[in-house]
Amino acid sequence: MKLATLKDGSRDGRLVVVSRDLSRYQHVPKIAATMQHALDNWDLVAPRLEQIYAGLNSGEALDTQPFDQRCCHSPLPRAYQWADGSAYINHVELVRKARNAEVPASFYSDPLMYQGGSDSFIGPYDPVYALSEDWGIDLEAEVAVITGDVRMGASLDDCASAIRLVLLVNDVSLRNLIPNELAKGFGFFQSKAASAFSPVAVTPDELGEHWESCKVHLPLLVELNHKPFGKPNAGEDMTFNFAQLVAHAASTRELAAGTIIGSGTVSNKQGSLHGSSIENGGVGYCCLAEVRMYETIETGKPLTSYLQFGDTVRIEMHDAAGRSIFGAIEQTVTHYSER
Amino acid sequence: MKLATLKDGSRDGRLVVVSRDLSRYQHVPKIAATMQHALDNWDLVAPRLEQIYAGLNSGEALDTQPFDQRCCHSPLPRAYQWADGSAYINHVELVRKARNAEVPASFYSDPLMYQGGSDSFIGPYDPVYALSEDWGIDLEAEVAVITGDVRMGASLDDCASAIRLVLLVNDVSLRNLIPNELAKGFGFFQSKAASAFSPVAVTPDELGEHWESCKVHLPLLVELNHKPFGKPNAGEDMTFNFAQLVAHAASTRELAAGTIIGSGTVSNKQGSLHGSSIENGGVGYCCLAEVRMYETIETGKPLTSYLQFGDTVRIEMHDAAGRSIFGAIEQTVTHYSER
Repeated sequence: MKLATLKDGSRDGRLVVVSRDLSRYQHVPKIAATMQHALDNWDLVAPRLEQIYAGLNSGEALDTQPFDQRCCHSPLPRAYQWADGSAYINHVELVRKARNAEVPASFYSDPLMYQGGSDSFIGPYDPVYALSEDWGIDLEAEVAVITGDVRMGASLDDCASAIRLVLLVNDVSLRNLIPNELAKGFGFFQSKAASAFSPVAVTPDELGEHWESCKVHLPLLVELNHKPFGKPNAGEDMTFNFAQLVAHAASTRELAAGTIIGSGTVSNKQGSLHGSSIENGGVGYCCLAEVRMYETIETGKPLTSYLQFGDTVRIEMHDAAGRSIFGAIEQTVTHYSER
Repeated sequence: MKLATLKDGSRDGRLVVVSRDLSRYQHVPKIAATMQHALDNWDLVAPRLEQIYAGLNSGEALDTQPFDQRCCHSPLPRAYQWADGSAYINHVELVRKARNAEVPASFYSDPLMYQGGSDSFIGPYDPVYALSEDWGIDLEAEVAVITGDVRMGASLDDCASAIRLVLLVNDVSLRNLIPNELAKGFGFFQSKAASAFSPVAVTPDELGEHWESCKVHLPLLVELNHKPFGKPNAGEDMTFNFAQLVAHAASTRELAAGTIIGSGTVSNKQGSLHGSSIENGGVGYCCLAEVRMYETIETGKPLTSYLQFGDTVRIEMHDAAGRSIFGAIEQTVTHYSER
């Protein structure tokens, strides 16, 4: 099934069930008022939401409304946990190669993961606010999952079973703040702005054969200022699948329902700067940092700028028939004074 | 006023107002069912809670119950954000000195802060669960604040005004997992277990003259296996006050109501291993790592063990008259299989 959260002026918005084709929705206040409530009581609530979903798709449901993804908040407008992996090692290899460093062998068996801020996500069509272009504002197009409760040290099977929903994310990164912050040794904080998630989150079964081995085997489509920028396949070159990422997060503590675990920037192995761009038949990129790394490796320095005020990013994923699965994230970088 | 969250089997527990002497409490379901609800609607709710608090203290309130801090969850059993600073630079200086490294000059003007897991805190009297003593389980006794909403780039004055509540925290750290994790460059994740907070959170005015310059000027009392282990003054040697820590967190993004910002391990400057221990007239320590660093600096290697299963930690703070302000955190390290 497909779920979304409509903005209604409250901090948590209002949970709705959305038809498979994203054309209609139904409120479900008697089943679960909010997405977090649904996740907190999933076993009880999910079967009832599935019934609503069936009615929406068959056209039998009464009391449905036209669905406008621009009215959505992120499925969880605020979450109790957002942990982002870096599962596409190709991205890490490029980062290291651009600064003439080796990738430690352990990186292929021990996932990178950082704890992100989850108190105030932005909506999929909300501006990306910043106080300065000098921060080096970058998109990071990713896939993520939302889990139920997970026990400490849970098995991979249990972690896989705990995956409730799949969605897309733009993990906005402030690249120019990263080197100083990471040098301090405590990880990202100021260098990660508020993230935005796709309007719709879907249960894994919605992905059919494209959900295989806890990976989403479909291209992630990224546009920059309305031009194609990336279309790497999220199922390829993903060194750690979502069960492994959840298990990593749960190794020393329990995870509570509503935990969001991200894949990190989707990135496919490609040979060169020239061959990797979409115009030249490559699959392009899910972040500006990646093209800048190719540039650095081949020309000694980055040539492409990070996002400027007014730049627009769009992130989406289509099924085999070309239909949007999650709706789109579409955001314009905007000075915070305009908020 | 003093607020607490009683366990009631639900994920968020039940908000209560507690008398100043921690002897009685009153439920407030008509004002705010949960702590998060109170924080979300603070301006509306706080004056009404203050009225209840006045009635509790004067003895005029009807419908009060005896308060048992052992029935408390952490004031926010789960939070949308937990960000922990490292404001006592003496602690950082000892860490560096023990490994023959310098403290970068920037550390005195740019706070260290990490994003912590906030999805499932443990209660103040709950066990600290772990799967292995080999993790190097350590306490970290700290002070923390809970904020209201904070704008991106907020001024220090605005950050100070946004502080709603003050409380204590045991930021459980898994020391033996830290070196490998920090070497990966993304900060703490597996090396931080679930934190526990004091039973009671108090508004800053409850601290009277001891809340000065956004610091708590009182000794933080730590016991290990029922013996005094630390009593450093939380108002001394705090390089960054809570307004500065909040401003650091809010520099590139908004903070939502219910954000918890920690001070980092409280640590006062002391000369030597011998002189720093409580038996020898020192103020002792708020974590085992610190005594191990003194040992390493003076003898070449650490001698004191980290916490073992069965060890007990107690963290509390008294007012000038020796009365507990926040109630106590009292936890026994326990194997997770006993959960």
